[in-house]
Amino acid sequence: MIAVAEALERILSELRPVATESVPLPSGWNRVLAEPLRSRLTQPPVDVSAMDGYAVRAGDAVAGATLRVVGEAPAGRPWAGRLAAGEAVRIFTGGALPAGADGILLQEDAEAAGDQVSAREAVQPDRWIRRRGLDFAAGDVLLPVQRRLTARDVGLAAAGNHPWLTVHRRPRIGILATGDEIALPGEPLPPAGIVSSNAHALSALVRAAGGEATVLPVARDDAGSIARAGRAAEGFDLLLTTGGASVGAHDLVQSALLPEGFQRNFWRVAMRPGKPLIWGRLRDVPLLGLPGNPVAAMVCGAVFLLPALAKLSGLPAAPTPTRPARTGRALPGNDQRQDYLRARLSADGAVATAAERQDSSMLNTLARADALLLRPPHAPPLPEGAAVEVIDLAPLGI
Amino acid sequence: MIAVAEALERILSELRPVATESVPLPSGWNRVLAEPLRSRLTQPPVDVSAMDGYAVRAGDAVAGATLRVVGEAPAGRPWAGRLAAGEAVRIFTGGALPAGADGILLQEDAEAAGDQVSAREAVQPDRWIRRRGLDFAAGDVLLPVQRRLTARDVGLAAAGNHPWLTVHRRPRIGILATGDEIALPGEPLPPAGIVSSNAHALSALVRAAGGEATVLPVARDDAGSIARAGRAAEGFDLLLTTGGASVGAHDLVQSALLPEGFQRNFWRVAMRPGKPLIWGRLRDVPLLGLPGNPVAAMVCGAVFLLPALAKLSGLPAAPTPTRPARTGRALPGNDQRQDYLRARLSADGAVATAAERQDSSMLNTLARADALLLRPPHAPPLPEGAAVEVIDLAPLGI
Repeated sequence: MIAVAEALERILSELRPVATESVPLPSGWNRVLAEPLRSRLTQPPVDVSAMDGYAVRAGDAVAGATLRVVGEAPAGRPWAGRLAAGEAVRIFTGGALPAGADGILLQEDAEAAGDQVSAREAVQPDRWIRRRGLDFAAGDVLLPVQRRLTARDVGLAAAGNHPWLTVHRRPRIGILATGDEIALPGEPLPPAGIVSSNAHALSALVRAAGGEATVLPVARDDAGSIARAGRAAEGFDLLLTTGGASVGAHDLVQSALLPEGFQRNFWRVAMRPGKPLIWGRLRDVPLLGLPGNPVAAMVCGAVFLLPALAKLSGLPAAPTPTRPARTGRALPGNDQRQDYLRARLSADGAVATAAERQDSSMLNTLARADALLLRPPHAPPLPEGAAVEVIDLAPLGI
Repeated sequence: MIAVAEALERILSELRPVATESVPLPSGWNRVLAEPLRSRLTQPPVDVSAMDGYAVRAGDAVAGATLRVVGEAPAGRPWAGRLAAGEAVRIFTGGALPAGADGILLQEDAEAAGDQVSAREAVQPDRWIRRRGLDFAAGDVLLPVQRRLTARDVGLAAAGNHPWLTVHRRPRIGILATGDEIALPGEPLPPAGIVSSNAHALSALVRAAGGEATVLPVARDDAGSIARAGRAAEGFDLLLTTGGASVGAHDLVQSALLPEGFQRNFWRVAMRPGKPLIWGRLRDVPLLGLPGNPVAAMVCGAVFLLPALAKLSGLPAAPTPTRPARTGRALPGNDQRQDYLRARLSADGAVATAAERQDSSMLNTLARADALLLRPPHAPPLPEGAAVEVIDLAPLGI
């Protein structure tokens, strides 16, 4: 058994960001840029007004002065002339500042009559002018690599005049569930069989993390069936297996895949649930063997698969974030395995109360949990209210 | 001008959840159930073992006792007989408990030799047995309405034997940018023109909130162009407009759409940026008129559009969540408009520092912001470190 941190480090050190592709701007949301995005233009492209009013020579526009309105400069339609002494140009937010102007007489400080306008307040030079390049200049890095693009980022990339973005393609993840006792939802169920939930829960997790999941047909608990599935793994960036609950299922995955070129990196992690985790490589394809137990599969998904998907996607290698909270109930001391307790959060998120029964088969408890409450190896007993670390589940979309 | 809270209330009270559709289970992630999902089966379907070991009659398996192994019960392959006195059945996690058995001798407490097994520890009745229905029973509500399905929920729906889910369809949102000065990225730019960023930023926001966005061709700043676009609005659940920055653009949207059946509910909200917000109905289609200013459009997106999309999606009507933080700089007193300052967060999220220049044209500042710091109307000046409320942007995907 190895520690959780070491397991994660070994997983991440084997993974590289996937290749890149060119996508149209609107497909860029939530993708990871593969190269820094530089602006192709300067914004604003010229000096513009920040307000509706009159472009003036500030020296002219003292309080009480009357100016002659010689033109109009709405956004997108610059006034071509040059402002002379005593002149003003009607201007609107975003309109280009005419040559010669160095101030804006605000609409609310102006009194217009015919082609005349009087200033009720003196105009300060430069005030209400957005200078060329205030937002960004051509060549500026607008968006860095290694983060998911937000809606605001998509807007900024558009403003920088990029119809296309170079992003990492979505990691392709194969998901192979094994087990004699499982059937897909709605299909005939073997006696005492259960409906396969892992593959589709993991597929949703992969999707939540920006990956592209392929759910392979369920493999039976025999070496031939698993080996056949393994041969189909070419082309995935990561192959997930999730073992059936039947005898030695994990040994079976390993032994069935050995002749197909499987090389194990580690097996068994000091955690609960999730101990029988496998990490290795099937020929060139990284293989993460998740436990068949559905709760264990999802906990390992949160702890190992999300960081793995992030690394494949081009994001920085980092553990799934935890944050401090207080325990809503007293907790017993822990043994040598790191424990991930399914917990409900108080409305403000400050208190995490572990479910009374933590049986790792209970999907219902898992779905109703808001967080995983971490109990490090050999953690001492804690009274109610003591400080703990939690992983928030809902923000991860899982 | 109306207050932000009243504006939001008026918007939400006009919206109803969209109709429903039937989607295959794997498409259910992040969708909103339209009816509570009840389990179609009982899980576990029979009493099963929670561990690898031997199913025994607890009364037989005292410390030191030797039992005869008469069969095997892996998951999915029940042993058909009935356990007699002095007998044991090899059992594995998830394996059905044979009739007559009421305890599990754990593998690590057992010594096996041929068809015999000895107990090193006494077996407690019921311990390590998962009783039929421990997780859920047929007919139980597994998943409620009014929340987005997580990956765990998808797993639970699968386990409850649902190949299909009845969810609200994605709200269809039309996005109409107007303005003479704007061009799409990569297209020829008019003199002093700017590249259209609003439509695609809003489209990404709609997508982040689970909607389906249709970006309409940019309408010119003339009544005919806007009216034509308005006639194409049938079939959307919500039409967004985003005004050009040119003269009276908002009046223009309203006046151009009036002959097309536009009815205004309100115009102008006491907020900064975002004052010239329009809310109404174009024939049967709710219309939200966002400011043309890109920062204002996104702030209104966060404050009004996200809750609107949530309500359309079948989620509860609620404002975008805020949370307490401390201001990283002293803040001046506020006027009658609620202010949304673009702010960076400290690593732990506890301190929000507003950008020095809050010019609402600056997309760069917006994209680099982690949060919007709220300043209520008439808020007093605050010293550095004072309590404020913030909206976290990244978790919203916007």
